[in-house]
Amino acid sequence: MARTPIWKSIAIALTDDIAQGRYRTGDKLPPEIQLASRFGVNRHTVRRALAEMAEQSLVHARRGAGVFVAARPTDYPIGKRVRFHQNLARLGRIPAKKILTLETRAAGKREAEALGLDLGATVHVYNGLSLADDQPIALFQSIFPADPLPDLLDALAETHSVTEALHRCGVADFTRIETRITAKLATATQALHLQLSEGSPILRTTGINAAPGGQPVEFGRTWFAGDRVTLTVSDDNDG
Amino acid sequence: MARTPIWKSIAIALTDDIAQGRYRTGDKLPPEIQLASRFGVNRHTVRRALAEMAEQSLVHARRGAGVFVAARPTDYPIGKRVRFHQNLARLGRIPAKKILTLETRAAGKREAEALGLDLGATVHVYNGLSLADDQPIALFQSIFPADPLPDLLDALAETHSVTEALHRCGVADFTRIETRITAKLATATQALHLQLSEGSPILRTTGINAAPGGQPVEFGRTWFAGDRVTLTVSDDNDG
Repeated sequence: MARTPIWKSIAIALTDDIAQGRYRTGDKLPPEIQLASRFGVNRHTVRRALAEMAEQSLVHARRGAGVFVAARPTDYPIGKRVRFHQNLARLGRIPAKKILTLETRAAGKREAEALGLDLGATVHVYNGLSLADDQPIALFQSIFPADPLPDLLDALAETHSVTEALHRCGVADFTRIETRITAKLATATQALHLQLSEGSPILRTTGINAAPGGQPVEFGRTWFAGDRVTLTVSDDNDG
Repeated sequence: MARTPIWKSIAIALTDDIAQGRYRTGDKLPPEIQLASRFGVNRHTVRRALAEMAEQSLVHARRGAGVFVAARPTDYPIGKRVRFHQNLARLGRIPAKKILTLETRAAGKREAEALGLDLGATVHVYNGLSLADDQPIALFQSIFPADPLPDLLDALAETHSVTEALHRCGVADFTRIETRITAKLATATQALHLQLSEGSPILRTTGINAAPGGQPVEFGRTWFAGDRVTLTVSDDNDG
């Protein structure tokens, strides 16, 4: 019977520590010498285990600073029903939304087109930040027709959640008509909010959500940190 | 009745020239002075028209070099049936695939898992470049199980097309099980093939295609030039 090499069993033990939440994203692992003493091996063996984990993108070494737990990319399903809270909760991650700005103003040309409004009609605008386990994963801007949803800003201010706020305003359900996805480089402002370097890869999605009758209720754009999110398109629900 | 300003009618005329194919992606527009003479206006008016077109991402100015026709981003539908040739032909763009390498070798761990093969089983590997109207839009790597498809490499060498080659080898139809999408920065090699700068945004997709019985027939990864492609996910086909 093949024995598991010592370095591999150390990698498995440390991977398990991370999976159990003993070390969390961004945490620094104990120094090599301490890990060597914990596992009763020499530093060379610890180093081999850490190299294996780095290879799997579980940790990353910063020269002179130590070895850190890497952020696991979050799988984010794109489909008929895109629900931030559900998507993350299902992965065992704690979802949160932070409000950056809430305002009501005249619709721009593209916004009016997307929502089927007359140019100059009034819209509510929600600029915010999506977090998973306190780590920013996306910036978003959601635009809503103001006339049919007079109380939406209050509901958003209270709940932070688009799904819940729309529900309170009488939109019991909505579905995604189309999602458009492209890649961009993070601007300085985006990098600041997302705690990235300027020029990091960004996944930008654009989508329109509609009420069951087909009336658009939300025009949304999201800028995901490319390193932290993998969008998934599954055909599970297809006929 | 409102009259169209001169600069705007010039922008419309030039936009039409581009739409009609008189100027193509990457072409340099005539110098301002020549355009001014064509339209019987001064250079200031031409400049205003070009600024408007740049605003709409139809052209871009390179300092000291002139004004160039920008690449229109290609809409690329992601769904149950992802067909490169169809996707582009539908948009009136001329699709082509260029073979970089074709080889048969042992499957890597991840490849074997994706295709449901034993580790070390043999796979065919197709590395290639996808073009639209002669412009590179994506690099791809497609991996196929070799045992059930002994003649696939010959068929690929002849047709360049995955759909056609699989068809010749008895796979009449296949559908996409899942697509995973993330954003990356172009490496030096990718930039060279895609005619981009190193560090440009890249949309990377990973997908598995399966035969009607559910047997995986292709594990594919694609690196799209982020500036040239917008992936679209539509729920048109949902129940």
